[in-house]
Amino acid sequence: MRKGIATVSLSGLLADKLAAVAAAGFDGIELFDNDLVASPLSPREVARRCADLGLTIDLFQPVRDLEGVAPERFGAVLHRVRTKLEVMAELGVTTFLACSHVGADARDDRDLSAEQLRRVGELAASYGVTVAFEALAWGRNLNRVGDAWDVVRRADHPAVTLAVDTFHLLARGDDGTALDGVPGDRIGFLQVADAPLLDMNVLEWSRHFRCFPGQGTLDVTGVVAAVLRAGYRGPLSLEVFSDAVREADPAGTARDAMRSLIFLEDQLAVVVDGPITSASLASAPPPPPRADAAFLEVTAGPGVPALLESLGFGVAGRHRSKPVTRWRNGRAQVVVNETPQPAGALPHALGVAAPAVEAVAARAKALLWPAVDRTRGAGEALLPGITSPSGLHVFVSAEPGAADDWQRDFDPSDADAHPDARPGAEAEIDAGWLGIDHVAVAVPPEHFDQEVAFFRTLFDLTPGSVEEFIEPHGRLRSRALRPADGDLRVVLNVEEVRPGRPRRSGITQVAFACGDVAAQVRAMRSRGVALMPVPDNYYVDLDARFGLDPEMLAELREHQLLYDRLGGGELLHAFTLPLPTGFHVELLERRGGYDGYGAAGTHVRLAAQAG
Amino acid sequence: MRKGIATVSLSGLLADKLAAVAAAGFDGIELFDNDLVASPLSPREVARRCADLGLTIDLFQPVRDLEGVAPERFGAVLHRVRTKLEVMAELGVTTFLACSHVGADARDDRDLSAEQLRRVGELAASYGVTVAFEALAWGRNLNRVGDAWDVVRRADHPAVTLAVDTFHLLARGDDGTALDGVPGDRIGFLQVADAPLLDMNVLEWSRHFRCFPGQGTLDVTGVVAAVLRAGYRGPLSLEVFSDAVREADPAGTARDAMRSLIFLEDQLAVVVDGPITSASLASAPPPPPRADAAFLEVTAGPGVPALLESLGFGVAGRHRSKPVTRWRNGRAQVVVNETPQPAGALPHALGVAAPAVEAVAARAKALLWPAVDRTRGAGEALLPGITSPSGLHVFVSAEPGAADDWQRDFDPSDADAHPDARPGAEAEIDAGWLGIDHVAVAVPPEHFDQEVAFFRTLFDLTPGSVEEFIEPHGRLRSRALRPADGDLRVVLNVEEVRPGRPRRSGITQVAFACGDVAAQVRAMRSRGVALMPVPDNYYVDLDARFGLDPEMLAELREHQLLYDRLGGGELLHAFTLPLPTGFHVELLERRGGYDGYGAAGTHVRLAAQAG
Repeated sequence: MRKGIATVSLSGLLADKLAAVAAAGFDGIELFDNDLVASPLSPREVARRCADLGLTIDLFQPVRDLEGVAPERFGAVLHRVRTKLEVMAELGVTTFLACSHVGADARDDRDLSAEQLRRVGELAASYGVTVAFEALAWGRNLNRVGDAWDVVRRADHPAVTLAVDTFHLLARGDDGTALDGVPGDRIGFLQVADAPLLDMNVLEWSRHFRCFPGQGTLDVTGVVAAVLRAGYRGPLSLEVFSDAVREADPAGTARDAMRSLIFLEDQLAVVVDGPITSASLASAPPPPPRADAAFLEVTAGPGVPALLESLGFGVAGRHRSKPVTRWRNGRAQVVVNETPQPAGALPHALGVAAPAVEAVAARAKALLWPAVDRTRGAGEALLPGITSPSGLHVFVSAEPGAADDWQRDFDPSDADAHPDARPGAEAEIDAGWLGIDHVAVAVPPEHFDQEVAFFRTLFDLTPGSVEEFIEPHGRLRSRALRPADGDLRVVLNVEEVRPGRPRRSGITQVAFACGDVAAQVRAMRSRGVALMPVPDNYYVDLDARFGLDPEMLAELREHQLLYDRLGGGELLHAFTLPLPTGFHVELLERRGGYDGYGAAGTHVRLAAQAG
Repeated sequence: MRKGIATVSLSGLLADKLAAVAAAGFDGIELFDNDLVASPLSPREVARRCADLGLTIDLFQPVRDLEGVAPERFGAVLHRVRTKLEVMAELGVTTFLACSHVGADARDDRDLSAEQLRRVGELAASYGVTVAFEALAWGRNLNRVGDAWDVVRRADHPAVTLAVDTFHLLARGDDGTALDGVPGDRIGFLQVADAPLLDMNVLEWSRHFRCFPGQGTLDVTGVVAAVLRAGYRGPLSLEVFSDAVREADPAGTARDAMRSLIFLEDQLAVVVDGPITSASLASAPPPPPRADAAFLEVTAGPGVPALLESLGFGVAGRHRSKPVTRWRNGRAQVVVNETPQPAGALPHALGVAAPAVEAVAARAKALLWPAVDRTRGAGEALLPGITSPSGLHVFVSAEPGAADDWQRDFDPSDADAHPDARPGAEAEIDAGWLGIDHVAVAVPPEHFDQEVAFFRTLFDLTPGSVEEFIEPHGRLRSRALRPADGDLRVVLNVEEVRPGRPRRSGITQVAFACGDVAAQVRAMRSRGVALMPVPDNYYVDLDARFGLDPEMLAELREHQLLYDRLGGGELLHAFTLPLPTGFHVELLERRGGYDGYGAAGTHVRLAAQAG
């Protein structure tokens, strides 16, 4: 499908926006009137600039408040429309977006609205222009897509069509079925936007919190599929505004926008059957069927080997061609990289096992996620790296035991033959840690939505809701992502801190799972690991909240464990103090299917870590 | 009245919060349970710390969800309450805040709620403790103050009282009359918070946007007055949480909080008659009856004299004892200061005429607004300077012509005898500019509420609503303040820009009023002033929107004026390009009582200035 974006979706001056949109590979734009009004370029110059950049102007938008107007003021409306039609003629654009009236003086009279819309349509037709009429979710009287369609039907003029905007439609609680019976050739334009679910004034919601498909939680795919099923074949055009986008570089926004449409096409290929499923709908390989946490990579440093040993890790192998060591504690794996890192690089990376590796790499490329520049020795496993929007390197590996298993690139150390090869190794492994439970990644606020989109579009992880915690010097906004299948859990955190305080980035916490956290904590202490002290008041509060049995409470207190209970499950966990690796380690034991992240104790942990 | 604040209202660790609250002069605190739970200090240590700092612990808060509970789960509630009562005994606090049940499983049965509250009251009484019961605005069944009072009345136990929270009460649309008939001795606690009016989920509103009295728009004074009239004599205690406060330094927050209570007492002195109006209610002199813009002060620099001359200013006098020159264009006055400024000081300041100067200075001192350090020559006018939260220096002067008029400190230049003294001077003055219309001040986001409070509490200016504009590299949030009497207009702007872009601070724009903007623009151009170019597209849009008569449109285009129309009034205005003084100058002509700031053209100006 043709891909477009509204200029209002990008920051900057009009000329910069056009350059960014063209560079990201879009076919066309919706030209936002205010962008033109504020531009020193004449309409003809804008048209020429677009043509030079290979962009069509698919829509001029918007013309507001042109129906439901008091008859004595309708002459002024026609004057306004005619003036804009003259501008559109110079621009060479043949569709304009008309929005339902939002003013307190809008008449609640559908026949009047239809009649006025018909007259606007007649005027537009005389310029060879079509009107696409949209119900704004905060329109005074017409605010659902059904209202707009009713008025378009009554207007009964070929130059008056329906505009569908996924945000406006979904924001009012409608879904794709609201378009049942609307013929595709009466849908004049399709605008696409997603948003997180927020309970707030819909106008403010729309202005500040829209996002690109894949970043929010609305069923954008369902509405777009309904529009395609109806027979619409116009452009798929993004209209997104948000505080984040206003403050972002337009080139980056344009790339985000393009990849959101690729993601959307990908989703559509699953949902829409029949003639719609053209080759263009499947421009990227599908996401991997599962995703597991494989390893953590840490940049080598003076305290690192001693630290890993104190945590119970031992050297398990050395890389055949690179200065890289593999460490293991049970099934938990850490890779220490001695290759000098460029300045500004994060001191850690994440390995994800996600079959098939080649397909994931191709998908990342199709989605425009940038690759990590790295060398691969002859005969070594394919281990492509992909850089997330916040700068995290994610390496994609085959499943353990596969022909292309990254572990085969390591010569096993004397102390640790290859797990498959040494008798009794399994039992020893089972006594250690169970693996990486989750990693927490600190993301700058302006990259939060993009980082969600990265894990969602690439690995098909599903984001949970945004949780918020108070920390002593600010707030922590947190969103966890998980795959439908596989054990990968990523928690994205935005640390909103006092101006002037440093903001952390990259992996700030690595949680390892184990079967008996009390025993493991005791062992770590005996190896000299400094664990986060837990205030005694916390245990008094635990008793108040959960009425725990005294023995259990005493054990938690003795081992300085935090505790949470949700449904039938329980979480027992402990934290190290911050480590020279730049993150701290959490050790946790999930009981009875506990599926959260210990939110009940997060404020205690944040206070202890800040102190 | 005794003044208190909840520890949840400040950022930091508990020990830092206590120190900040004591330093700001508070009498007591509400201790937030989570602050205690996360603290390494035992309850007895907290009590000792408070006593050492001269603070009482007026309230322990909150205990949640203790009424409307399924009977089989009420035993767990009593266990929880008893555990917290033990903690309170160690703390030495005798009142706790109970909040109405918010859970989906809360029973909608007032008799059950009252019975359970009575039993909690009995338990509390056995520890010598009183329960203050509050209806959270998002309580499941009990969410208005009348609901809480009804249940307290039914509980009918001396240890069960009503807690009033101005935010919760006002957020539900109630006002002080909701307390009619509630005896003062049944009000166990009064919590005070303000907020801007926002149409959003009330829980989110409460969590993120509360502010101190004087910063928001709720009628906090009305509710507090009703509570005082009922006979309540407990502490006036602030409970404010917001994103801004979470990310602010606790010492600064504590000072803001204290001055908001001084401001509130000041308002109460006007509203409450009779025995309440004790000396303690009038700790600050009243605000000035009027406030006018007197002058702009600019730090001397190489291009400044030529600039002022090109703008039509001439030297009107030199200061008797300081290297300061007074410039005049009609009634508009600019002072150029050659005194070297400390590094980081803003290159401009604002003079405000506000009688009586001594009273304003005393008021500023009582409100803890810091004074500018300056010397005053013998016999010179009192001209106290006060520093705003964002660092702007505001000098307070007597009215023109008063004995203490700051202009008398200047020897008139040859070209400009003192206005009162020279025949024909009035006519000449009338031909020039009319004065400072408004100044726009860029404020960091974290100081926005405080800067509003500065102008509101000191000069009694009234803030308008928050307006928002798109600028090419971000967003502009804007709030204008005006006095009931006088011509001072201050527009506070928060520039939310792309990370990495410099943020401006201080005065970014000075608007001067004139009688004939076209003539003045022509004169400025002839003197070589570079004015902001306005795109031709803008005039096409003006025609579309306003259907202006062609002659008028041609004149606007010729002089590159922006235009706005609101009600019966019109605004014609032009802008210079940014000047070496760090701000740009706007020249405006208000016609027919136009009372805005040209919002219709703001996006065009912002684009032109960014370009």
